[in-house]
Amino acid sequence: MKVGFIGLGAMGSAMASNLIKAGHDVTVWNRSPGATEPLASLGAKVVRSADRAAQGEVLFSMLANDQAMRDVLLAGGLLDGMDQGTVHVNHATISVALAKELADEHATRGIQYVAAPVFGRPDVAAAGKLNILAAGKPMIIERVRPLLEAMGSRIWPMGDAPERANVVKIAGNFMLGAAIESMAEASALARAHGVSAADFLEVMTGTLFAAPAYQGYARLIAAQRYKPAGFALPLGYKDIGLALTAADALRVPLPLAGLLRDSLLEALAAGDEDVDWSVMAEVAARRARLDEREL
Amino acid sequence: MKVGFIGLGAMGSAMASNLIKAGHDVTVWNRSPGATEPLASLGAKVVRSADRAAQGEVLFSMLANDQAMRDVLLAGGLLDGMDQGTVHVNHATISVALAKELADEHATRGIQYVAAPVFGRPDVAAAGKLNILAAGKPMIIERVRPLLEAMGSRIWPMGDAPERANVVKIAGNFMLGAAIESMAEASALARAHGVSAADFLEVMTGTLFAAPAYQGYARLIAAQRYKPAGFALPLGYKDIGLALTAADALRVPLPLAGLLRDSLLEALAAGDEDVDWSVMAEVAARRARLDEREL
Amino acid sequence: MKVGFIGLGAMGSAMASNLIKAGHDVTVWNRSPGATEPLASLGAKVVRSADRAAQGEVLFSMLANDQAMRDVLLAGGLLDGMDQGTVHVNHATISVALAKELADEHATRGIQYVAAPVFGRPDVAAAGKLNILAAGKPMIIERVRPLLEAMGSRIWPMGDAPERANVVKIAGNFMLGAAIESMAEASALARAHGVSAADFLEVMTGTLFAAPAYQGYARLIAAQRYKPAGFALPLGYKDIGLALTAADALRVPLPLAGLLRDSLLEALAAGDEDVDWSVMAEVAARRARLDEREL
Amino acid sequence: MKVGFIGLGAMGSAMASNLIKAGHDVTVWNRSPGATEPLASLGAKVVRSADRAAQGEVLFSMLANDQAMRDVLLAGGLLDGMDQGTVHVNHATISVALAKELADEHATRGIQYVAAPVFGRPDVAAAGKLNILAAGKPMIIERVRPLLEAMGSRIWPMGDAPERANVVKIAGNFMLGAAIESMAEASALARAHGVSAADFLEVMTGTLFAAPAYQGYARLIAAQRYKPAGFALPLGYKDIGLALTAADALRVPLPLAGLLRDSLLEALAAGDEDVDWSVMAEVAARRARLDEREL
Repeated sequence: MKVGFIGLGAMGSAMASNLIKAGHDVTVWNRSPGATEPLASLGAKVVRSADRAAQGEVLFSMLANDQAMRDVLLAGGLLDGMDQGTVHVNHATISVALAKELADEHATRGIQYVAAPVFGRPDVAAAGKLNILAAGKPMIIERVRPLLEAMGSRIWPMGDAPERANVVKIAGNFMLGAAIESMAEASALARAHGVSAADFLEVMTGTLFAAPAYQGYARLIAAQRYKPAGFALPLGYKDIGLALTAADALRVPLPLAGLLRDSLLEALAAGDEDVDWSVMAEVAARRARLDEREL
Repeated sequence: MKVGFIGLGAMGSAMASNLIKAGHDVTVWNRSPGATEPLASLGAKVVRSADRAAQGEVLFSMLANDQAMRDVLLAGGLLDGMDQGTVHVNHATISVALAKELADEHATRGIQYVAAPVFGRPDVAAAGKLNILAAGKPMIIERVRPLLEAMGSRIWPMGDAPERANVVKIAGNFMLGAAIESMAEASALARAHGVSAADFLEVMTGTLFAAPAYQGYARLIAAQRYKPAGFALPLGYKDIGLALTAADALRVPLPLAGLLRDSLLEALAAGDEDVDWSVMAEVAARRARLDEREL
Repeated sequence: MKVGFIGLGAMGSAMASNLIKAGHDVTVWNRSPGATEPLASLGAKVVRSADRAAQGEVLFSMLANDQAMRDVLLAGGLLDGMDQGTVHVNHATISVALAKELADEHATRGIQYVAAPVFGRPDVAAAGKLNILAAGKPMIIERVRPLLEAMGSRIWPMGDAPERANVVKIAGNFMLGAAIESMAEASALARAHGVSAADFLEVMTGTLFAAPAYQGYARLIAAQRYKPAGFALPLGYKDIGLALTAADALRVPLPLAGLLRDSLLEALAAGDEDVDWSVMAEVAARRARLDEREL
Repeated sequence: MKVGFIGLGAMGSAMASNLIKAGHDVTVWNRSPGATEPLASLGAKVVRSADRAAQGEVLFSMLANDQAMRDVLLAGGLLDGMDQGTVHVNHATISVALAKELADEHATRGIQYVAAPVFGRPDVAAAGKLNILAAGKPMIIERVRPLLEAMGSRIWPMGDAPERANVVKIAGNFMLGAAIESMAEASALARAHGVSAADFLEVMTGTLFAAPAYQGYARLIAAQRYKPAGFALPLGYKDIGLALTAADALRVPLPLAGLLRDSLLEALAAGDEDVDWSVMAEVAARRARLDEREL
């Protein structure tokens, strides 16, 4: 199938490469051009403007945030120039407010729209094993299903209203942040009592918490090694902000999300942004001065 | 082997029954006598005082809390009457302070002591699939290992100092509470945006959080059914209190544990104690008045 | 002096009336025209567009929030049309980001600008006893001082950079919210132990907390009477949001501000917006189910 | 009048000295004898056992905490030896639970008991200007009123049940802690935006928060000088613990008290206990790394 893919960060590149490997005819575009080279070598056609990537049957997008989405899709005129026959599948993690706005903007122009945020880090994306949420018209989701299956191991239909998929993605990332804070504080308690974080987390992730969300971050916390970042601190902070904003809009108190924001803010204040957001474990340890005790 | 088992609540009874089924000669005692009948029918010898249960090679105990432990073991004189050849394996979830005190009290009297708190609910205990932490002298742990393996699917050695196992148990239960609060708040956010808790949690526990700790509680939250309690609200509150006390003693700030205490306290203030501690999800929903909105 | 005043809510009207009473020649404008009548009867000249109010020596503004400020001053073209000789004194509580932006916008156009947020409720404004923060060029502040003194009992110079006054105002309102939450929770504790909120708060506001910030809100909490609102719940929520936003921008963790946001959000979820923000005391009492106990 | 005074820390010594100056015949006792010398030089009779101080018409006590109270009064047998005609006026800040227990213990023995915790630091006590809460039989309070008036500027009757005075004292100290945390965080916000804590707090304590509770601590925070301690960090931590315990007993969620406990715990983890509890301001500044920014 002839498709386009815009937004080629670590996630987008991995996802687009799986579409190419599945035999699709993929046209790619990225704001900064360097990212397109590896895909070109796999066989992608590289174009210099987003609208030229939007001329196939399906346009996939994986842009960084609300602002990038607005810049390219709305202000940049991409949506205005799209053909009504094209389906837009949007993988980005965006705010619920923008999700609703995009649903309207597409409907007004008669363009089919599927919100399809994903769970999984770049290595999972590269392996084609993402969990892909998909909200939009069931018929349209079925049409793009073979393409989604090239990128993910499972597709989770989330109903007709696109923003439903975005809410689930935002609430899910909030749960990830909570899992990290929970390991961070519990490990600090264990360490203060002489049990290393590694020993403690080995038990936890081998028993009650034998789940990918815990096992990956537990390795980082146990090793106190937060670089290179799997999911960067500023992105985690942004995502907790999306949860708080979605909650404020509908007046849902989320004290745990507020607590996560404070821990992430304290990590950011420490100055190094180029770390994984599980660096929250360092914040918990620092509050208790564990490193000074263990000298 | 000739062993004794004292403390026959839902957990203790299930554990003792597996010792009997494994062919051991088990003598049991409980403060309130009714609980001993099912075990008697399986072949246990029922005695009327704790010290008569302590006359085998190993004494297992699974009493409710610090107070029960003090009453029976210390004030009640059980420890004073025990033979030096007997090993005491204590499965109870107790405070770190009492754990250290008990280690001393046993050492003073020359009695071998293994702290062996467990992860798993009564149904897991009945199936003999508990995860059993075990801290004490390695030689002693090896001696009782066949007995522990009759009750658990995996034994986790935690080092020599008994309290290490208790710290891990306490920190682990804190992580469980955090997992519940996380699902509670995230589900409230999803519900406010029109995604049912059941739909939301199905995705989460089928992907990132495909772990027993989440799946069990997610079922209760999705169904809004908190009775019968798998782990009762007052016990959850007690265990978060153990984490806070262990943290205070060594000056480890645990803001997330404080937040859990407040949610549990709010649940307790609502009046019904005979519910599972995942009723924290009701607290989160009530703060946002979700039930009123969905009428 | 010939001056203009735009933004005639409860605060702005009271302040403008004091300028009139002090003998100044005051031209007023408000978006909804009704509010101008009482001032007209005092001698104000009422005009139909903001720019006609901006033709005197000084323009005072007391608009509701960032959006109103942007609409009138920037998008509405008021600033573009102002004479360079005019001084703009802005009393509104606005974000630090907008405060900086406005400082730039005025400087670019060569218009003198004083940020002059105030502490005090409408009755204090009516009595001409506001505390007025004032940041801007000292010479300009001295020039408008006689006018400010017609409205306030004390002028607090806050330095040259206008946003400094806005930061102090925002941080001060955060402290007010904290004082309310503190009385709310402490009163709930006292009530649970049989001491009425009225008895408890009488002691507190008669001793350690004998300050206006406490005494006013204590009366509302003691009487459990939150209408009419002195400072409305949605405004309080907005102001705590300004503190959190100002903190996020510079990475300052404010856990107490996060806690206030949750209490206010819980109050808002209860449905009634037309109440004083000290209704946080009801939230604290509801969490403990105090009303049910005291039946 | 012939009276006794036991517990001669900074507060007790100051209070006893005012009784002496008012012309009363005062017998004093303290666990560590050194503290009695200055009082002896004022004319106090120093005795070597608490029971000999309890032989006058009134016994005043100002012991450090629950444990000291239990040691001296109950375990030490002081109460058992007291004459029924003696009134015991207890100024200590103790738990609500002990307050109730002491009320019972006195009633059982027919000894009159007044709970009379005080607000005020040692300098206020020395000036005889304490605020004294007083709960007990009105007739008894009237009998000791002249003595209380020698120590305080105002006596606040709190009803018959002694623990009522203790609840108010505990809730009041919680409000003090909240005031400090509020100044700590708001000052951190101001500092990050370039307004010094001194400038910010001068405005606040000169306007809305012109109350002794704020002015005293604001001076310490503005000067970043926490020694010598007016009210030592470990005492503040103890008192917030009393509030949380009193709240837990009756199931009153106090999220703000939990937040204070975490800030105090973080301050304690930093290692220096010999500081004023307003050192919470350092914790808030450290979380935002303000000192590093301002270098």
